[in-house]
Amino acid sequence: MSRDPRYDILFEPVKIGPVTARNRFFQVPHCNGMGHQHPQAHAAMRGMKAEGGWAVVATEECEIHPSGDVSPYVEARIWDDHDIPYLSMMTEAVHRHGSLAAVELVHNGPSASNLYSREVPLGPSHQPTNYYPFQVRAMDREDIRNYRRWHREAALRAKRAGFDIVYVYAGHDLSLPMHFLQRRRNQRIDEYGGSLENRVRLFRELIEEAKEAVGDTCGVVVRFAVDEMMGEDGISSEGEAKDIVAMLAELPDLWDVNLSNWKYDSQTSRFAEEGYQEPFTAFVKKLTSKPVVGVGRYTSPDRMVSLIKKGVLDMIGAARPSIADPYLPKKIEEGRLEDIRECIGCNICITGDMTITPMRCTQNPTQGEEWRKGWHPEIMPAKASNDRILIIGGGPAGLEAARALGQRGHEVALAEASTELGGRVNLESRLPGLSAWGRVRDYRLGQIAKMSNVETYPGSPMGVTDILDQGFERVVLATGATWRKDGVGRSHAFPIPGLDTAKVFSPDDIMAGRLPDKGPILVYDDDLFYLAGVLAERLAKAGLEVIYVTTADTASSWTSNTLEVYFVNKRLHALGVRVICQHDLVAVRNGVAEIAPAYGEAVQHIPVGAIVPVTARLPNDALYQELMAAPEKLKDAGIKSVTRIGDCLAPGLIAYAVYAGHRYARELDAPDLGEVKFRRALPLVTTP
Amino acid sequence: MSRDPRYDILFEPVKIGPVTARNRFFQVPHCNGMGHQHPQAHAAMRGMKAEGGWAVVATEECEIHPSGDVSPYVEARIWDDHDIPYLSMMTEAVHRHGSLAAVELVHNGPSASNLYSREVPLGPSHQPTNYYPFQVRAMDREDIRNYRRWHREAALRAKRAGFDIVYVYAGHDLSLPMHFLQRRRNQRIDEYGGSLENRVRLFRELIEEAKEAVGDTCGVVVRFAVDEMMGEDGISSEGEAKDIVAMLAELPDLWDVNLSNWKYDSQTSRFAEEGYQEPFTAFVKKLTSKPVVGVGRYTSPDRMVSLIKKGVLDMIGAARPSIADPYLPKKIEEGRLEDIRECIGCNICITGDMTITPMRCTQNPTQGEEWRKGWHPEIMPAKASNDRILIIGGGPAGLEAARALGQRGHEVALAEASTELGGRVNLESRLPGLSAWGRVRDYRLGQIAKMSNVETYPGSPMGVTDILDQGFERVVLATGATWRKDGVGRSHAFPIPGLDTAKVFSPDDIMAGRLPDKGPILVYDDDLFYLAGVLAERLAKAGLEVIYVTTADTASSWTSNTLEVYFVNKRLHALGVRVICQHDLVAVRNGVAEIAPAYGEAVQHIPVGAIVPVTARLPNDALYQELMAAPEKLKDAGIKSVTRIGDCLAPGLIAYAVYAGHRYARELDAPDLGEVKFRRALPLVTTP
Repeated sequence: MSRDPRYDILFEPVKIGPVTARNRFFQVPHCNGMGHQHPQAHAAMRGMKAEGGWAVVATEECEIHPSGDVSPYVEARIWDDHDIPYLSMMTEAVHRHGSLAAVELVHNGPSASNLYSREVPLGPSHQPTNYYPFQVRAMDREDIRNYRRWHREAALRAKRAGFDIVYVYAGHDLSLPMHFLQRRRNQRIDEYGGSLENRVRLFRELIEEAKEAVGDTCGVVVRFAVDEMMGEDGISSEGEAKDIVAMLAELPDLWDVNLSNWKYDSQTSRFAEEGYQEPFTAFVKKLTSKPVVGVGRYTSPDRMVSLIKKGVLDMIGAARPSIADPYLPKKIEEGRLEDIRECIGCNICITGDMTITPMRCTQNPTQGEEWRKGWHPEIMPAKASNDRILIIGGGPAGLEAARALGQRGHEVALAEASTELGGRVNLESRLPGLSAWGRVRDYRLGQIAKMSNVETYPGSPMGVTDILDQGFERVVLATGATWRKDGVGRSHAFPIPGLDTAKVFSPDDIMAGRLPDKGPILVYDDDLFYLAGVLAERLAKAGLEVIYVTTADTASSWTSNTLEVYFVNKRLHALGVRVICQHDLVAVRNGVAEIAPAYGEAVQHIPVGAIVPVTARLPNDALYQELMAAPEKLKDAGIKSVTRIGDCLAPGLIAYAVYAGHRYARELDAPDLGEVKFRRALPLVTTP
Repeated sequence: MSRDPRYDILFEPVKIGPVTARNRFFQVPHCNGMGHQHPQAHAAMRGMKAEGGWAVVATEECEIHPSGDVSPYVEARIWDDHDIPYLSMMTEAVHRHGSLAAVELVHNGPSASNLYSREVPLGPSHQPTNYYPFQVRAMDREDIRNYRRWHREAALRAKRAGFDIVYVYAGHDLSLPMHFLQRRRNQRIDEYGGSLENRVRLFRELIEEAKEAVGDTCGVVVRFAVDEMMGEDGISSEGEAKDIVAMLAELPDLWDVNLSNWKYDSQTSRFAEEGYQEPFTAFVKKLTSKPVVGVGRYTSPDRMVSLIKKGVLDMIGAARPSIADPYLPKKIEEGRLEDIRECIGCNICITGDMTITPMRCTQNPTQGEEWRKGWHPEIMPAKASNDRILIIGGGPAGLEAARALGQRGHEVALAEASTELGGRVNLESRLPGLSAWGRVRDYRLGQIAKMSNVETYPGSPMGVTDILDQGFERVVLATGATWRKDGVGRSHAFPIPGLDTAKVFSPDDIMAGRLPDKGPILVYDDDLFYLAGVLAERLAKAGLEVIYVTTADTASSWTSNTLEVYFVNKRLHALGVRVICQHDLVAVRNGVAEIAPAYGEAVQHIPVGAIVPVTARLPNDALYQELMAAPEKLKDAGIKSVTRIGDCLAPGLIAYAVYAGHRYARELDAPDLGEVKFRRALPLVTTP
């Protein structure tokens, strides 16, 4: 197929100083948990985006100096010449596909830890570091001169590493130029503090000096946070941001603009719609003739076209959509819109950086596996046998297995007991704010619909006999899991006394629309990720009184890793949900829940209408156990293997289910690689 | 000097299966944040302990398989042969000094994350992983067979890497053999679950199989947690632990026994005295003829002798004391007890592992610098000039600078304004539970007292003229910092309204014994580490009503990294301190504090007798600024340099102050190494 002419505008080249981007797709800097520790994996991941059509592909933050060391977070690093070979891997991978490589130079100032370098951290004024129990020192004039020199030297090194674009970064409350801009952090009384002109001085100098150093061959661009979402207490698009852009308007070769801090920039679909940054960033283009890039989790080509035409942006910035689908530009270019794997906005990618491990993606199971397993997001190896595969269960694991096996050329039948394909994705995407999660199902159904070798059978519960009768060589069980109603989980190894006779609604009940008829409802969260919080929201929105009890220090505590914990708590509060932290549900007696504090003895007694325990799940593996109990019958039926994937093996994230389905398809008939099934980045051996 | 004969018993050799330890000093496995990512640093750190006389030097946890991947935590790794060269570095470094190298093989089961490997985690039964929002799968018989094979293969690999001792690890609630022992985790109905004999089966098999595989040349030892401090709900020294030890008594070549989980094993001096594990572990020796190792933050040689003589232990286990002083055994051996740098039990070492960065030590500033900076804990380079150094300030930075410069041979004068040397260490070590912190001062005073080239002058406040008149070539300012009284810190860039006229006591006031005369006292914690919690304890113990308000989700939240947060909260509760989390102090009016919730609007009004804001500090750098304002005078006085170190440069941890003092001494007259002042472990470059 060929491109719809209405998208032609997206494929116009854009000049960025001395270099030219071949189209308007710009992968802005984003963290990924690989950085300097996994350079091969990082290079391959970035290279894949160039291959998929992103005209500019940027690194994440790239530390320029040991005094701005953000360990344990793993970002890029350009401290000295030792780092160049690793960064060159990335620029070469990007250049191989005709794209421009960009690097985001950063000194984190008070956001640094220096836990690895052990240098004294720096800032515009004396103040605590952001995340650690020690302080930065106020930079003196010599410190500022040194910092400017480090930045300039890093730019020169970046050029030698092959970068085409060098970023001066004033975003996310994470970099010194931004810290100098902020009145609240910059209380200097010299020429770098006080008036806005003074506070802009450092940012301006860095841009000028980078242009002087590398501007002959490199684009020198800025990333600037136009709004910190704190009104007059911060940089604001209604306030100083406008003046800053006006003051520097023509100085950089491009403006990459966004919200700060990270939780506002990378909001999930639960809390923000596609394009949520437009109201804040739209002013920038009015003040500069230079190209403007912005983000907003854009996956719709029509929306992109409209942004360009309306004069809001010149290039479509993307982080998460480029992770979910590195081939997004190419699919638009080739007129294959229905093949786009749209980002669902769940921020599982961000949990990688937050947990200091290579990121993964719910939609794109090949994310992070490009180098270490050689997985390509668009290409599957042709089948190595004529085995036909029967998949039982049409949730995310089963659907992805069917899709990927179908892509390999296998004959596949997918049987789903219920009348709808989608499994838990159907249930969860109907919860408040999670409708975009349905894209996990929709993408796969769309792909499967085009495959003549994959058949789906909704409304087809399968028993052992059914399976044996079908004549498939391989059986895959993707039958999901069921939430426990007995309270067993992290805090309770054995059932919570009284839950067996209490009015209990499991998460499955609530998701299926079986709601208690009267409150108060006690939602007991011992799972600690998103679900209990969403269920509480669901119940409150149904008009029920909700009490949310969690064993953790805050509601939905693990959503700190998806940058959502603040928004979750705000929303629960706004809905009138009573949140009780650091408490355990220890018993239920006669409609009264007993909750015990983590650090005391005073048990509270709370009369409840019903209880929703969110604790743990049990795999739906009865069918597997039955099949395993009849090895002779399997043999007689010609079944070579029976494999559990996804939640029916071990209940986990939707991302894990998709990955398990994909992995099954990849590894079918593949050679055994031993116990370590991927390549690793190992340290250089030198004499100790 | 030579050894006191009463310590001879500590230097008797101990047979551990086929190998023999040259004395009774045993560095048990301990995490360190270096592990597989910093192999050279790790090897040098371990080698230093062998050099210092520890007869056995062990690794930390060593992961045997990708399905037990504890990323992001950085431990040792022996997944396949690729890992052998890194581990061999360590065994060679240990052997070089005549000690035995031990490896602690581990599969973390439900304590693993598999965030890097992306394998499905394993456990005895279906259950949530300990720290992540996904579950393990119950191992079937084939899984158990595989696990036993991985363990055996890892033991064989360990032997090839040069290890003399192989650990089978059932400790800390962190390893599968322990998880199988626990009734609460193991709900299996096969021969590996149910009766104690069944639950012990896996542990026994692993020991037997390791002995069969490598027992000809390697000691096969166990690490076993004898008490989980949860009574009958866990393994208990009054319960099943006795039976387990009895059942396996003679099977391993040595028993290394301790408490579980980690927070109970590695308790700080604030919450536990030297030898706190004895009541729990003492039974073990009665049940086995094999050598028994135990820990308890032992630094007293007399206590060690008594333990051996009383038949409590055969070898003195140590993790933290070996970090604070790798030369502890050698100093006892050489009769230099007064040179021992005793562990203060602050757990700053553990914050390294917890923050996934190489550990450091408050007492031993060379910790972690053995390889990357070539620092030796006992040896300083001879001075490279005859510069005489004047140090102003006798806190931890000043004392260590004086000591280390003195060791180099410089003439040093240390002037302290107050009548006591020790600075903040004096103040903090008088707070409840922190008396052992005084060892930071005591060690240095003891060393300085032996140096004829270092003079100390307590009670000597110094002004610019005094300094200029002294005729020293170098001036070092270690004048510390002062706690702010205006509330400025992380949450407030500008003073909190009303604090200027309210009754405010700073942390310095409280530490100096200036206490409010009536409550309630509102301790406002925006610092988030230990101090606000200790001050609340201090005030409550003085009989005052205390309300503790913190912006964080829990009291003293950063003490999660020192394993203390649970104990801090328990203690505050026991003392009747009212803890209010997720609230900010926004104003004080007419004796009423206004605190605002993080996720709501309802400001609480709390009448208070006084407020103690624990937010941030300001460096005491007035003297520095005065000196800098008179460059001509400095020149005329022959002063080559004026340098700030420690809190007067940037307020931080005591560990940082000691490090800064040490670093100043090391770097004086040393060649400039450029911007990166240490060697790094870099990844191998392979083609992506």
